[in-house]
Amino acid sequence: MPGTLEDRYRAVRRQTEALCEPLEIEDFVVSSMPDVSPTKWHLAHTSWFFETFVLAEHLPGYASQDPRFAFLFNSYYVQVGERHCRAQRGLATRPTVAEVFAYRARIDDAMGELLHGLAGDDRHPAVRLIELGLHHEQQHQELLLMDIKHVFWTNPLKPSYTPHPGPEPRDPPPLRWRDFGEGLRWIGHGGRGFSYDNEGPAHRVFLEPFALATRLVTNAEYLAFVRDGGYRRPELWLSAGWSTVQEARWDAPMYWTRSGPDPSAADWTEFTLAGTRPLGAAEPVSHVSYYEADAYARWAGRRLPTEAEWEVAAREAGQGDAYERLPDGSFVEGTHFRPAPAAVAEDGAGLTQMAGELWQWTASPYVAYPGYQPPSGAIGEYNGKWMSDQWVLRGASFATPRTHARATYRNFFAASARWPFTGIRLATGPDAPG
Amino acid sequence: MPGTLEDRYRAVRRQTEALCEPLEIEDFVVSSMPDVSPTKWHLAHTSWFFETFVLAEHLPGYASQDPRFAFLFNSYYVQVGERHCRAQRGLATRPTVAEVFAYRARIDDAMGELLHGLAGDDRHPAVRLIELGLHHEQQHQELLLMDIKHVFWTNPLKPSYTPHPGPEPRDPPPLRWRDFGEGLRWIGHGGRGFSYDNEGPAHRVFLEPFALATRLVTNAEYLAFVRDGGYRRPELWLSAGWSTVQEARWDAPMYWTRSGPDPSAADWTEFTLAGTRPLGAAEPVSHVSYYEADAYARWAGRRLPTEAEWEVAAREAGQGDAYERLPDGSFVEGTHFRPAPAAVAEDGAGLTQMAGELWQWTASPYVAYPGYQPPSGAIGEYNGKWMSDQWVLRGASFATPRTHARATYRNFFAASARWPFTGIRLATGPDAPG
Amino acid sequence: MPGTLEDRYRAVRRQTEALCEPLEIEDFVVSSMPDVSPTKWHLAHTSWFFETFVLAEHLPGYASQDPRFAFLFNSYYVQVGERHCRAQRGLATRPTVAEVFAYRARIDDAMGELLHGLAGDDRHPAVRLIELGLHHEQQHQELLLMDIKHVFWTNPLKPSYTPHPGPEPRDPPPLRWRDFGEGLRWIGHGGRGFSYDNEGPAHRVFLEPFALATRLVTNAEYLAFVRDGGYRRPELWLSAGWSTVQEARWDAPMYWTRSGPDPSAADWTEFTLAGTRPLGAAEPVSHVSYYEADAYARWAGRRLPTEAEWEVAAREAGQGDAYERLPDGSFVEGTHFRPAPAAVAEDGAGLTQMAGELWQWTASPYVAYPGYQPPSGAIGEYNGKWMSDQWVLRGASFATPRTHARATYRNFFAASARWPFTGIRLATGPDAPG
Amino acid sequence: MPGTLEDRYRAVRRQTEALCEPLEIEDFVVSSMPDVSPTKWHLAHTSWFFETFVLAEHLPGYASQDPRFAFLFNSYYVQVGERHCRAQRGLATRPTVAEVFAYRARIDDAMGELLHGLAGDDRHPAVRLIELGLHHEQQHQELLLMDIKHVFWTNPLKPSYTPHPGPEPRDPPPLRWRDFGEGLRWIGHGGRGFSYDNEGPAHRVFLEPFALATRLVTNAEYLAFVRDGGYRRPELWLSAGWSTVQEARWDAPMYWTRSGPDPSAADWTEFTLAGTRPLGAAEPVSHVSYYEADAYARWAGRRLPTEAEWEVAAREAGQGDAYERLPDGSFVEGTHFRPAPAAVAEDGAGLTQMAGELWQWTASPYVAYPGYQPPSGAIGEYNGKWMSDQWVLRGASFATPRTHARATYRNFFAASARWPFTGIRLATGPDAPG
Repeated sequence: MPGTLEDRYRAVRRQTEALCEPLEIEDFVVSSMPDVSPTKWHLAHTSWFFETFVLAEHLPGYASQDPRFAFLFNSYYVQVGERHCRAQRGLATRPTVAEVFAYRARIDDAMGELLHGLAGDDRHPAVRLIELGLHHEQQHQELLLMDIKHVFWTNPLKPSYTPHPGPEPRDPPPLRWRDFGEGLRWIGHGGRGFSYDNEGPAHRVFLEPFALATRLVTNAEYLAFVRDGGYRRPELWLSAGWSTVQEARWDAPMYWTRSGPDPSAADWTEFTLAGTRPLGAAEPVSHVSYYEADAYARWAGRRLPTEAEWEVAAREAGQGDAYERLPDGSFVEGTHFRPAPAAVAEDGAGLTQMAGELWQWTASPYVAYPGYQPPSGAIGEYNGKWMSDQWVLRGASFATPRTHARATYRNFFAASARWPFTGIRLATGPDAPG
Repeated sequence: MPGTLEDRYRAVRRQTEALCEPLEIEDFVVSSMPDVSPTKWHLAHTSWFFETFVLAEHLPGYASQDPRFAFLFNSYYVQVGERHCRAQRGLATRPTVAEVFAYRARIDDAMGELLHGLAGDDRHPAVRLIELGLHHEQQHQELLLMDIKHVFWTNPLKPSYTPHPGPEPRDPPPLRWRDFGEGLRWIGHGGRGFSYDNEGPAHRVFLEPFALATRLVTNAEYLAFVRDGGYRRPELWLSAGWSTVQEARWDAPMYWTRSGPDPSAADWTEFTLAGTRPLGAAEPVSHVSYYEADAYARWAGRRLPTEAEWEVAAREAGQGDAYERLPDGSFVEGTHFRPAPAAVAEDGAGLTQMAGELWQWTASPYVAYPGYQPPSGAIGEYNGKWMSDQWVLRGASFATPRTHARATYRNFFAASARWPFTGIRLATGPDAPG
Repeated sequence: MPGTLEDRYRAVRRQTEALCEPLEIEDFVVSSMPDVSPTKWHLAHTSWFFETFVLAEHLPGYASQDPRFAFLFNSYYVQVGERHCRAQRGLATRPTVAEVFAYRARIDDAMGELLHGLAGDDRHPAVRLIELGLHHEQQHQELLLMDIKHVFWTNPLKPSYTPHPGPEPRDPPPLRWRDFGEGLRWIGHGGRGFSYDNEGPAHRVFLEPFALATRLVTNAEYLAFVRDGGYRRPELWLSAGWSTVQEARWDAPMYWTRSGPDPSAADWTEFTLAGTRPLGAAEPVSHVSYYEADAYARWAGRRLPTEAEWEVAAREAGQGDAYERLPDGSFVEGTHFRPAPAAVAEDGAGLTQMAGELWQWTASPYVAYPGYQPPSGAIGEYNGKWMSDQWVLRGASFATPRTHARATYRNFFAASARWPFTGIRLATGPDAPG
Repeated sequence: MPGTLEDRYRAVRRQTEALCEPLEIEDFVVSSMPDVSPTKWHLAHTSWFFETFVLAEHLPGYASQDPRFAFLFNSYYVQVGERHCRAQRGLATRPTVAEVFAYRARIDDAMGELLHGLAGDDRHPAVRLIELGLHHEQQHQELLLMDIKHVFWTNPLKPSYTPHPGPEPRDPPPLRWRDFGEGLRWIGHGGRGFSYDNEGPAHRVFLEPFALATRLVTNAEYLAFVRDGGYRRPELWLSAGWSTVQEARWDAPMYWTRSGPDPSAADWTEFTLAGTRPLGAAEPVSHVSYYEADAYARWAGRRLPTEAEWEVAAREAGQGDAYERLPDGSFVEGTHFRPAPAAVAEDGAGLTQMAGELWQWTASPYVAYPGYQPPSGAIGEYNGKWMSDQWVLRGASFATPRTHARATYRNFFAASARWPFTGIRLATGPDAPG
């Protein structure tokens, strides 16, 4: 994200609105399940974030035009004040979409004024908050796509978000293993540049020898698990996962539908942002929960990597500069809305699909790094208070903005979440090399 | 509703759309609680009714343009086919509002063709079904207003549907009692003209002597019950009512809000279709459940009338022609959206507010009249299958179309329903004359 | 129930304890679903009733030995004070069964003292309360059997309450119809002798001509409904009934189990108080809800009788003295625990099985008779506050004590209740004679 | 646990039954919440474990006397077969308590025969399974006490399990900090002697410098948190913890009751196995969830230790032989049923209360150690399938059998569990030494 802070502010804000272009007004309003927020809420909440944490503090004389918006568009910051019940977000028809866009424009005007005043002063305390607000908005860009996909899926008419069907099919290379030796390593964010608080402090971990699969698990590979009775064999599942399978009656990844009697791929379809399409055998399996990723790995005789393994591998496989290189070549915004099949890595044993296709479940629960301290005040609620009952995902998906991905990024969701753009990368070791 | 059948068809359809004029597109989409349907669903469902029960049967060559609409807009007619889960009605952003209006226009075109062909033939089997469809749509006009009021109430911004604040306040006359003697009477619909199946057969009932209050209970009178601890005294309530009070934490009628420490009317507001307004002391209390109406009557030392008492009184008080006269002078469509205070009846002891202000809870559970037979086929599901766990309401509200009200009309809701436009008329007797 | 009041007191109390003889201590403790109370709770609650409403008021100097029992064993009398949450009744292991029997003995001692003092004084205000307490305890004798049957059913070991398998099978006579003409009739309790408040006042009702089936519907007849897809055809059901069928996954009466692939009676068993037994084709179908009774009647082209029809028929078919005669010849306590097949009535068209086999669902919701006034104070909660969302059952079951049955008796349960000893008697008319 | 395997078998089995001596038959039957199993279920399930995993495999000719017990008393081993729904455990009144003891006796007879045949053969495959069965039964001894405490608490009569009020009060020493330096350490079970599969493999972890509190947090210290609004300040809580506080309306540890207006300790009582007692200021706070332990630590400016820190400290503080020494001096079975206040450690800075008072929540989610492999077959379900959504507790409580405690023991419960005997030990570092 080159350019001035103001350039970057404008670009991120514009990108959020660009994502809304395919939508009808009605599409902005509803929440199709408790995890999903309405599109117009995303548009307003990201603006509220700048208003509350930046403008109210740092733009002299700034006053909200409608203080009720602070109630409506606060997500979960309890130290900032009361907020609209999450369960009712999808019931509020007002403010209208037009009013929300007008609210965004007012915030952008005020931010323009503030940014103009800041110009050049990189050490002004507002700068870090604006950076945070931009990353926050980028995070919501991906949420917006996750959410609208679920809204469309819930609709019996199964609308499409995009007319582009996605990447060309190609045969993926065979799954190979890349080995990593034992030793004490550094992980976590310790350098310059933006990171969330939860990515630090950088610290040492001891790793046993391990190996990582060179690409993600494909739909065809996952279908073999389904056809082998994967969803009917409790011995493959964590106990909580098996309960979920039974209660939610899962028998395949989210968005898969079996359309015929033949259990092969030909009789399955997948709902995508381009509508219902034949299941692509070569594409990485997506929309699986942690429970499914874990059960698949057990069925395959492997396991999921820890987040430390993933991060060490991402850096080492990048030959020293992975941290900077990783996200750069990975995705091009807006050209596809579906993960692509793996390509052959140049050196034959390199890691592919580390970022830019799907987030990858790790075997690591989301807890604090040693010495972690959240910032004081409401902004400290951003990450810290979620550190229980969630699992870390690493990488980035096709829907993650390029400048929002980092090798140290710790995404997290509950074990049963399937609506994010999730996938599976296998690991093995220390005992049984792949 | 004078004029030809086609005239009446056009007028009713136009009126439904007129009711939508104050709405923004976003307002058409959501369902704020399980009882509430989205406005665009009402618009489509009433059209589906004509399509399914009239056009499909009686317009040669008629074919639906989108058969999926039959799934989306069937309410509860199980004999017609599968239907969209009621709980998900408020989640479907498509078809859009514009597409629903286009669907209405297509239905109107086809109905125009059919009506043209029928002209003059009053005995064609389609005619009765079209009459039913018109009454069905009028019923949904009132539901639409009930539902949009709840949608707006759910919204923290508390939008208004209409800028008109409602009728002028005036002091209501004192509550008096009109006596009726014992005897065998006829009730139910037995004449010509349209009625729903559940209004017949006409049949005899024996009534003990009773008296009916000359007007509805006012907000001021109901507030006295609230201030006397009405919602904290279990001995005043049916057991199921008391459970509901505690679980739902009721302490006043729906849409009332206490705005200050003073328990008098001055510190209460009421949400209306014109937004939040001071509680009108003289207006009839509205949005009470059966449980509240029953508890209020017990507190007042009275009871609710049975539906037979109400109907007999409505006819006798009308001096012979009440059945025809009743609804005529009662309401003027579209001029107010709030019940008006009672006026003094001309003869000093006549019944006022029998229709055109609020539906009146009766002490009668909704069951079949002796000899009742629903029509065969899906259309028989209209009324018959609801004959359990519901209570009859009589009269009509300010939101009931004038040509949709009848002295024999049996409206019905569950005992806990508060979002309809309900009110309370007291009765007494046989033992203790008022 | 001949003899002095004291004799009757002793006999009723003894009978409650006799019903407990087949039980192990463990059986007294649990509640297998929200409607079911533990046996030891029944034993204690019936004693609490005498303590609270009789001894505390009328035995000078009486003091409860453990005031916490008033909290534990009050069922629903809110005017008497706080009470143990119903949902936790089955979790309280103390007081032990032995302690509860000791509590009963203490109450019996005190009651003996009071009864001794009352001897001969029939007009003492305690007398009516003691009569009420005895009927209350008799009512709980039937509840105790209903409840223990469900407790045993819930247990995978399916224990038996009694070793006696029940009445001998015999072929029931064909179902015939007994006609009754139209007219104004008296119903309700107006004579001397005990009745509950809800049985009065006696009052007139107008009945259209109707006919009543001479016997109850048999298991074989009901099985024909099951085999005809009765539980899969929504058009046969009330809407609330159909929802219940789907949510609760009903496919047969409670306690029926299909043991083999053949849908005929040979492949069904029924759980009884004597354990699991082959389904008796000739026996009256039992443990059906109102919804099932109503659906069966609709499938059979008939309907359920109203409570007025049932009562008028019970009296008239008894040729003038039905009210006294009805229960006398009907049941012998303790000799069977299962309804018997119908016998041929002496005159070939008489009504059989009116009492002593199963309670019979009527088409009448449970509401107040005209002029009904519950007694003042807590005792008024006995019947009055249940007058919503319940249906009247008439007759009496094999488990109803003989001296507890009356032609005017209004039993009531919710439409979905299946654990009472319920059955089906059909009616027809006014239009279509049988 | 010295002596032969048979001696130890007899001793453990006897101890389980000794724990039941204070109970009435009624107390064995119920389950007071979903986490709680009936005492008679514990008695039977521990026997079923030997029957299923030992006798059925290793005693030639062994046959179960009642195969239905395999259904009733299997807890969660899906690979062994169908099992009774956990939610219904507390509803099964049969088999009776006497029948369960008879079942235990039959298992003991068969085990006696098997043990006799094994004598001396330490390498017979049954030996490891019998060891596992004994540890399993010891684990259930603690569960039995946790569960019966909750059953008694649920009862409004608040019965006592023991007449002994617990240890003498004494003033605890001030809370001090014991420092540990950074470095690579071994944790996990790698030696001889019994351990559960989840305690291994032994492996290296890198620890930053940290300090551990020398004793557990006391009731008085925790009360200061309560009085400081701890349960009303969301900023102190994990988000999931705060939701739980609000939904479950927590305002103090489980079993605490505020008996008066004074918020000091004098106005609080605590329910113990000896009944309701004044809150002991010096005793360690118990029956707190992970959420509460975490919130308390945040309020105190500290944190919870990781399980690796706890284990390293336990070993090092034991000066080389901690692993053997730890549990030995800690508890004497059966003499108290309540945690004791801390004593002054001999060297003034040693760790006290590491085992024998309360289990100590760690900041470590319960996941597999690197290279962990559960045993194959149903026995592999013992620990492995619970490795999600649980937190590790270390140490041992007053209710843990002495021979069941180990420095490597990984106990685990969900973050909201409060009915186990849990407490809080604080940690600090790496940044802010205590």
